[in-house]
Amino acid sequence: MTTPFVAVLMGSDSDLPVMQSTLDVLSSFDIPFEVKVTSAHRTPAATHAYVHGAEERGCKVFICAAGLAAHLAGAVAGITTRPVIGVPIDAGPLQGHDALLSTVMMPGGVPVATVAIGKAGAKNAGYLAAQMLAVASDEMAERVKADRQKNAEAVMAKDAALQEKLGR
Amino acid sequence: MTTPFVAVLMGSDSDLPVMQSTLDVLSSFDIPFEVKVTSAHRTPAATHAYVHGAEERGCKVFICAAGLAAHLAGAVAGITTRPVIGVPIDAGPLQGHDALLSTVMMPGGVPVATVAIGKAGAKNAGYLAAQMLAVASDEMAERVKADRQKNAEAVMAKDAALQEKLGR
Amino acid sequence: MTTPFVAVLMGSDSDLPVMQSTLDVLSSFDIPFEVKVTSAHRTPAATHAYVHGAEERGCKVFICAAGLAAHLAGAVAGITTRPVIGVPIDAGPLQGHDALLSTVMMPGGVPVATVAIGKAGAKNAGYLAAQMLAVASDEMAERVKADRQKNAEAVMAKDAALQEKLGR
Amino acid sequence: MTTPFVAVLMGSDSDLPVMQSTLDVLSSFDIPFEVKVTSAHRTPAATHAYVHGAEERGCKVFICAAGLAAHLAGAVAGITTRPVIGVPIDAGPLQGHDALLSTVMMPGGVPVATVAIGKAGAKNAGYLAAQMLAVASDEMAERVKADRQKNAEAVMAKDAALQEKLGR
Amino acid sequence: MTTPFVAVLMGSDSDLPVMQSTLDVLSSFDIPFEVKVTSAHRTPAATHAYVHGAEERGCKVFICAAGLAAHLAGAVAGITTRPVIGVPIDAGPLQGHDALLSTVMMPGGVPVATVAIGKAGAKNAGYLAAQMLAVASDEMAERVKADRQKNAEAVMAKDAALQEKLGR
Amino acid sequence: MTTPFVAVLMGSDSDLPVMQSTLDVLSSFDIPFEVKVTSAHRTPAATHAYVHGAEERGCKVFICAAGLAAHLAGAVAGITTRPVIGVPIDAGPLQGHDALLSTVMMPGGVPVATVAIGKAGAKNAGYLAAQMLAVASDEMAERVKADRQKNAEAVMAKDAALQEKLGR
Amino acid sequence: MTTPFVAVLMGSDSDLPVMQSTLDVLSSFDIPFEVKVTSAHRTPAATHAYVHGAEERGCKVFICAAGLAAHLAGAVAGITTRPVIGVPIDAGPLQGHDALLSTVMMPGGVPVATVAIGKAGAKNAGYLAAQMLAVASDEMAERVKADRQKNAEAVMAKDAALQEKLGR
Amino acid sequence: MTTPFVAVLMGSDSDLPVMQSTLDVLSSFDIPFEVKVTSAHRTPAATHAYVHGAEERGCKVFICAAGLAAHLAGAVAGITTRPVIGVPIDAGPLQGHDALLSTVMMPGGVPVATVAIGKAGAKNAGYLAAQMLAVASDEMAERVKADRQKNAEAVMAKDAALQEKLGR
Repeated sequence: MTTPFVAVLMGSDSDLPVMQSTLDVLSSFDIPFEVKVTSAHRTPAATHAYVHGAEERGCKVFICAAGLAAHLAGAVAGITTRPVIGVPIDAGPLQGHDALLSTVMMPGGVPVATVAIGKAGAKNAGYLAAQMLAVASDEMAERVKADRQKNAEAVMAKDAALQEKLGR
Repeated sequence: MTTPFVAVLMGSDSDLPVMQSTLDVLSSFDIPFEVKVTSAHRTPAATHAYVHGAEERGCKVFICAAGLAAHLAGAVAGITTRPVIGVPIDAGPLQGHDALLSTVMMPGGVPVATVAIGKAGAKNAGYLAAQMLAVASDEMAERVKADRQKNAEAVMAKDAALQEKLGR
Repeated sequence: MTTPFVAVLMGSDSDLPVMQSTLDVLSSFDIPFEVKVTSAHRTPAATHAYVHGAEERGCKVFICAAGLAAHLAGAVAGITTRPVIGVPIDAGPLQGHDALLSTVMMPGGVPVATVAIGKAGAKNAGYLAAQMLAVASDEMAERVKADRQKNAEAVMAKDAALQEKLGR
Repeated sequence: MTTPFVAVLMGSDSDLPVMQSTLDVLSSFDIPFEVKVTSAHRTPAATHAYVHGAEERGCKVFICAAGLAAHLAGAVAGITTRPVIGVPIDAGPLQGHDALLSTVMMPGGVPVATVAIGKAGAKNAGYLAAQMLAVASDEMAERVKADRQKNAEAVMAKDAALQEKLGR
Repeated sequence: MTTPFVAVLMGSDSDLPVMQSTLDVLSSFDIPFEVKVTSAHRTPAATHAYVHGAEERGCKVFICAAGLAAHLAGAVAGITTRPVIGVPIDAGPLQGHDALLSTVMMPGGVPVATVAIGKAGAKNAGYLAAQMLAVASDEMAERVKADRQKNAEAVMAKDAALQEKLGR
Repeated sequence: MTTPFVAVLMGSDSDLPVMQSTLDVLSSFDIPFEVKVTSAHRTPAATHAYVHGAEERGCKVFICAAGLAAHLAGAVAGITTRPVIGVPIDAGPLQGHDALLSTVMMPGGVPVATVAIGKAGAKNAGYLAAQMLAVASDEMAERVKADRQKNAEAVMAKDAALQEKLGR
Repeated sequence: MTTPFVAVLMGSDSDLPVMQSTLDVLSSFDIPFEVKVTSAHRTPAATHAYVHGAEERGCKVFICAAGLAAHLAGAVAGITTRPVIGVPIDAGPLQGHDALLSTVMMPGGVPVATVAIGKAGAKNAGYLAAQMLAVASDEMAERVKADRQKNAEAVMAKDAALQEKLGR
Repeated sequence: MTTPFVAVLMGSDSDLPVMQSTLDVLSSFDIPFEVKVTSAHRTPAATHAYVHGAEERGCKVFICAAGLAAHLAGAVAGITTRPVIGVPIDAGPLQGHDALLSTVMMPGGVPVATVAIGKAGAKNAGYLAAQMLAVASDEMAERVKADRQKNAEAVMAKDAALQEKLGR
């Protein structure tokens, strides 16, 4: 039997600093994951082979990060029918606007679940993967709920700190 | 016990013609769904009540469509921890560019799985929901795979028709 | 009886450096204000509770600052019928263009009085709040007029300094 | 004594069909208003004279609509210290994107309360003016609240109609 | 021995009306070509097989047309090392702006020779292919030069007609 | 009799570093000029008075620089019928895109001769003013021609230096 | 001796309907003009010859209209040192946004006096040419002033008509 | 007999640091090249003369780099019928978005093979030129294939390094 896991693909190892946020969120939920540097354009065969293999090994969700004409998420979405989350990276002179449109404007039949450009999106890719796995796991659903509660408390703590600072 | 289903929310009943594509895809996969017209801004309390209730009744995936400053998907994502798919509607003078940014650029911790603006996105929201449900159901995974195959055949049939027309 | 005041909400305490301009302008007009860190998505219930309470305590104008898919102003505008001023923050790779569209393109019935992205907007949120309070207070109207005059004199002083520097 | 009223200015009489929504909302709240066709560029003196006169006659809020390099709201905001609401009109090849930026990106000290491009914005200009007048009038505040409630009911009625149509 | 030819790929047969201009230009230069409807996402394997086969059969230049998140040209450029010309199609709500960025912003090592969005680009894809083939064929180079001359004469004829119409 | 001169207006003295290029070009052509810090919004009356006075003193061309919702050039163009050159300044988060549209998209009847955003535009405002004055002065026309020749030689000198560096 | 005139160049005779507004304004000021269809790319030699000849025949101002990657105005500005007015035409899928940037963002030393995209710009090109000629002609200056006055009266007449219609 | 070579033109020597990537790629393929600083606007005659001469000396492909209203590639494409590759440079406040549109949106009949903005595009201009020369040279085609293979191996090596670093 295969163990369910998440595969995190990125078009270049220069995307890793941004995508570390994804890995951190996945780790915080104890979600097993693999990380793979592979390019839709420079190593299409390796990409194809990896995605097929990962799906067979039990990969339930793919997360793909790329900049510029970001085709990686779309290419992976054309290979597998597992949900694919796309993270547009803000590399290059257009600051990720190109990556956003290249990732989100997929034609009918081959969706990419696109999140925000850059750091916020990288973080949310981890959360969204957890939410997707929670469709099949009530325990994961509980972890996601608990984390949301913790996040809310963090915002309220910041507010409390601000009120104190303002002397109220 | 609750029956798993998908909830399709839209900010206005004028979004229904575009969102019919979502309903058609869900129907084609025999996925039970509810449809709800509710507004993040005009009926926030009703939206909140519906989302809470739907989650309790077994809603596993939310699909939210809105145009202009499209807050509906983000608002729903702030209420539930189930995956939320956002469909930016191309209403108004900016043709959905505003709705896309309002839907996809969510801050860390509260993801919206955003699909393409308009019709293509509406269709893909249905496919993405099916892929998410398939995380928990091998049978659904098979249906999604079979449909992908059918789609590929449709493209190849169009090519065959073109070749014939070109007399080759 | 309640004392009229302005409530300044921001989605994150990282918005405070920009929003300090708002607080400075309000202070310069001796307008009482409260500051609140609260998120449309991470703490929707706390946001709702605060806005309701503030309105009851006599809040006459809400000022809301947020970046990315900036929903805070719109969410607050859906809770209260007091005027809501939205300040799009230039955080993230799209430099506030996303926050501007998410704030200003509100659907009919729920307006957000949107000002410029970033610092200029933060300053103007304070001025606009003063102008709104001046609808009910001739004294405030006089203060706003006097300040405008002072601003004009500052521009003219800069011109005089320039003329001197150019030796004319 | 002067009667408080709202002045609705537009750069061209071709803006009237869009701005009729503003007039309808003001009428629905029984708010007295004046309508004026005047141009920031073609009739600057007439604009100046009108704004000064209107302020003296008791105008509490100005609403200004213009397309292209929409300067009217900013020009009026430079003349009066009453709140000025700007409605960017979607005329010309850039569909109001130019008018939006020309209206909202005001420098510090001279705010324009900007609403959405086109029809939605025209409607919201009326609502926002009513909210501003309500700062000084509890009765107007009640009317605005009642209207909001009516709007919410309209959304819920549309949902009910949809449910019935879907046979649920 | 293989016969050199151009392969024209399009993501959907709905692109054919625009791409007919490409075919017309190729025909006018007596350049042999094949036309193929194939999708980077829906039929990735068929695309791969076709491109490999075409290259072996003597295809010297690929022309790829697609709309939305237009990945077809990039995907083909990742399979072959023959020059790939990308035509962004103005389908969907963003009028080809998404297709342009998805086609042109390719990462280092895998170029796509991108032409204008829509009809002008479709025409120029044909001209550019002819220019590329002319690198290896002086006869083709002469044909391209002659055609350029004819185009210049057409502009001058239009000017002459205008002068006559203006009575000069 | 009045002496013909150029008036250079800027909305803020923070625009001076960019606009120094304009002054340098005017100086290089021995064109008399005045510099004025004045704001379309903060000192509209002073702007009006200055423009009227300048025109009477013999100002033949106005150059106006402003950032954000850059109304200064348009406001001046509404006061005078002398040619007005607009320089969009790249201040603020939108990097002058807002200033460009606010300056160039003027309605029929009140043109602003718009040049590039920022430094290149500031330089060209000086050149364009010289070209306009040359309509009335053959001597100025000669100076402009001579300068263009010098510019061409500078480009060719840079090329020569490059060829030498490349050892050719 | 040469007679001063304006040369109106357009990249294609399909630009004539928009540019008719330019011709009408020039005619209304009794300004002699020539019209020429010529292309920066398809007939560069003819363009060069025409511009040189026109300058020698007494052309004082060039007006150039083009769409897409609109190079015509820039190309003409590189040939002559007379002022060149650029009219970006809203042809093609990007609605003139491409033509605007291609026309206005000229590098230092070779200015193009750019006006609005499309019809408003075409009209203003005529007005701007008249203003430029008025630098050398007090009579033309008077005509421009008189026309401005007439325009102002037209706006005021529209306002009067509106007031009457509103029964005030 | 002439030796085939590539000509690399740039509008300013400030483009050289970016364009060095092009030269490096050409060198790596042992492709002879010339480098020329020449401006479409400041030295149109020198540009014209160089392009004609280069074509006669055996230039088979032109590569043109320019920023802002980047006309150089289009101007060269209007002079020669050899393929012209355009590299939009990310100079100026709009970060190359202006240069991209000015380069790619060419009218029918005069194509420019446009690559990505900035560094990635500069690199790809070299690769694309090599691919074009390979149309006429099987040996060059082999070199391009070998280089692609090397690039793929580099991506795979980075992935291997990452796997090691992650301790897998």
